[in-house]
Amino acid sequence: MTHLSPLAPARLPDMPPVAGVRFATASAGIRYKDRTDVLLALFDKGTSVAGVFTMSRCPSAPVEWCRAKLKSGQARGLVVNSGNANAFTGRSGHSATRLTADLAAKAIGCRPGHVFLASTGVIGEPLDAGKFAAVMDGLCARAASEPWLDAAKAIMTTDTFPKLATATAQLGSASVTINGIAKGAGMIAPDMATMLAFVFTDAPIAADVLQKLTARGVADSFNAVTIDGDTSTSDTLLAFATGAAAERGAPRIARANDPRLASFRQAFEWVLANLAEQVARDGEGARKLVEIVVEGAVSKSSARKIALSIANSPLVKTAIAGEDANWGRVVMAVGKAGEPADRDRLSIWFGPVRVAYKGARAPAYDEAEVSAYMKGPEIAIKVAIGLGRGRDRVLTCDLTKEYVAINGDYRS
Amino acid sequence: MTHLSPLAPARLPDMPPVAGVRFATASAGIRYKDRTDVLLALFDKGTSVAGVFTMSRCPSAPVEWCRAKLKSGQARGLVVNSGNANAFTGRSGHSATRLTADLAAKAIGCRPGHVFLASTGVIGEPLDAGKFAAVMDGLCARAASEPWLDAAKAIMTTDTFPKLATATAQLGSASVTINGIAKGAGMIAPDMATMLAFVFTDAPIAADVLQKLTARGVADSFNAVTIDGDTSTSDTLLAFATGAAAERGAPRIARANDPRLASFRQAFEWVLANLAEQVARDGEGARKLVEIVVEGAVSKSSARKIALSIANSPLVKTAIAGEDANWGRVVMAVGKAGEPADRDRLSIWFGPVRVAYKGARAPAYDEAEVSAYMKGPEIAIKVAIGLGRGRDRVLTCDLTKEYVAINGDYRS
Repeated sequence: MTHLSPLAPARLPDMPPVAGVRFATASAGIRYKDRTDVLLALFDKGTSVAGVFTMSRCPSAPVEWCRAKLKSGQARGLVVNSGNANAFTGRSGHSATRLTADLAAKAIGCRPGHVFLASTGVIGEPLDAGKFAAVMDGLCARAASEPWLDAAKAIMTTDTFPKLATATAQLGSASVTINGIAKGAGMIAPDMATMLAFVFTDAPIAADVLQKLTARGVADSFNAVTIDGDTSTSDTLLAFATGAAAERGAPRIARANDPRLASFRQAFEWVLANLAEQVARDGEGARKLVEIVVEGAVSKSSARKIALSIANSPLVKTAIAGEDANWGRVVMAVGKAGEPADRDRLSIWFGPVRVAYKGARAPAYDEAEVSAYMKGPEIAIKVAIGLGRGRDRVLTCDLTKEYVAINGDYRS
Repeated sequence: MTHLSPLAPARLPDMPPVAGVRFATASAGIRYKDRTDVLLALFDKGTSVAGVFTMSRCPSAPVEWCRAKLKSGQARGLVVNSGNANAFTGRSGHSATRLTADLAAKAIGCRPGHVFLASTGVIGEPLDAGKFAAVMDGLCARAASEPWLDAAKAIMTTDTFPKLATATAQLGSASVTINGIAKGAGMIAPDMATMLAFVFTDAPIAADVLQKLTARGVADSFNAVTIDGDTSTSDTLLAFATGAAAERGAPRIARANDPRLASFRQAFEWVLANLAEQVARDGEGARKLVEIVVEGAVSKSSARKIALSIANSPLVKTAIAGEDANWGRVVMAVGKAGEPADRDRLSIWFGPVRVAYKGARAPAYDEAEVSAYMKGPEIAIKVAIGLGRGRDRVLTCDLTKEYVAINGDYRS
């Protein structure tokens, strides 16, 4: 179950430094042996921060910490640990976040409220944040601008590959860099999948603008990926903008509708989308990456609901695992979404092949062509609802026996 | 994959006749070899009928037929076939329902609109209803009041056991009978699971009263069962009341609030609940029957949503398959339900053992006791939300590799 996903990208990207960001990793012994489990990132003064978090009504303590501390819009540090999610840990969870932030702030020389936190791993076990004390000064001393791969590895749980993405954008006359790392749907018994992503840029973007960019960017990236429909208590996406590129002439952006943001916005959204796709490619037990496109719905949000209904259907996902172009199950998933749909207008494609047309099996499509298509590693399903102009796209993966094994075989 | 579910009832019930109901089964060769695939039930004149159907926006042709014909409130016949769902079959689907009803009506000597229909099996393939012509007269001639087991078997798809239930009730001075048969979440490649249930009574209940009883009865029985969160295009529950017990002194019931209905309502709801539980016990690949009770929610409907979120969570279901009392995943599922919940008031039990209390791991519960409990075939999870008095209960089963195999192994 720790074999590399067959859907892993062929190569890791070369990550350039982001001016104003340094980081280091260490083994604090939270849960794992023989691997790193804590990442400390340091930001130069003037770094703005934005974030979006799990919609869970039962969020983890670090999620609550970040939500509260985002109000200042300023960040000097980020501490991420794997091995323990510090979720459902009651009062001790809050103590642990406070202690972690205090330790980091002391080492960095900043206010605890400027330290952001994320944790992933076991739920319901108290996090012994005291373990960070032994490594914090060393992390600060070693912090450097290069080890992106180390950073991405330190936050993995049962991810089978580290997730990194980088892009450059033009901001005024300056070129700025946007780097991101993420961890995806990995499990640590007895925990649930958690998505964490951190994006870093040297662009001088005000915190409230960065917040709008992040909230908008997540809608069609991380919010459009589903592995199994389950939602972690700890999902966290934080974006940090150091502003260091201002020294190279990048204009300071204080309004979200500033037209100079166009290139940055595009690159920023590309980084989020790329990381989100990597999460889908590393879904537990995944052997196929699945893209669901719904068009002709009454609205984009209706298309999203229908696409998610298809993407989260165990029957659709097992059919894809079985390389079966089972459009009947797609009809089923459209029907159960509860959104406007007319059976007799539905058309469905698997890849290039239209298998259903206006409410019935498409006349004389080539079964052999569909079968050959279903054997590939990337499956595109398109559904035309035929009612309006709403369109959306989500990514998911197939549901395999390995998923059940990863998530159910603790005792066997 | 056709092994008897380990959760099957130890014995089949002895089914008494229901006066006014006769039936027979035959092999029409719809899809299967060497088994029956069509059930014809005949009802005496004066039989009232009620029904509830899938909420799918893409219902099958028989579902549309039944919805339209229910308006008369009268039934003389029921034709159920397995092997082909007559779903997503366009215009030909309507022709097939019409032809089936015409054939049955001619054999019975009644109006086609008094014949009710249900189909389960392959989706998207035209149903060759002409095949019923060869068997319809024979079905009528052979119809008898005894072969309940044959009836339950003829409507099976990949159910591993036939589902039957019977109860008696007092109606005025007469004893009346309520018999039911059902098929559950079985698969026919390339089709999806479909739930069909038919309930028969000799009680003289007016159609609109029967409709209210059925709609109410389904809420905490079939609507409170989920296998994988997927909803068939063909789900159908029909109830038939012949009224034959009136000859033995049973009063004719014309109002839903008639106090003489108390015993009947209780027995009727028990039959529905018993059949629904059998469906859960025969969930695809199921090895454990799972009861989710949510209490202390802000309302019953809020409790239902939270319970379904837990019951449909792949991570909860795989944990149960792995005999892992993974309450962290239960917290996750509560959190994602979107209903009011306060992490720091949550308590969770697996069977008799409270594993989480007020937002954290319960102090010092007996791990060995929980582990032993999780090895059993029936798992009860109780979640106390701590906010109000809303309570609800749903049934489900675990998610095993066999589920994936049944639904994904067509090509392997």
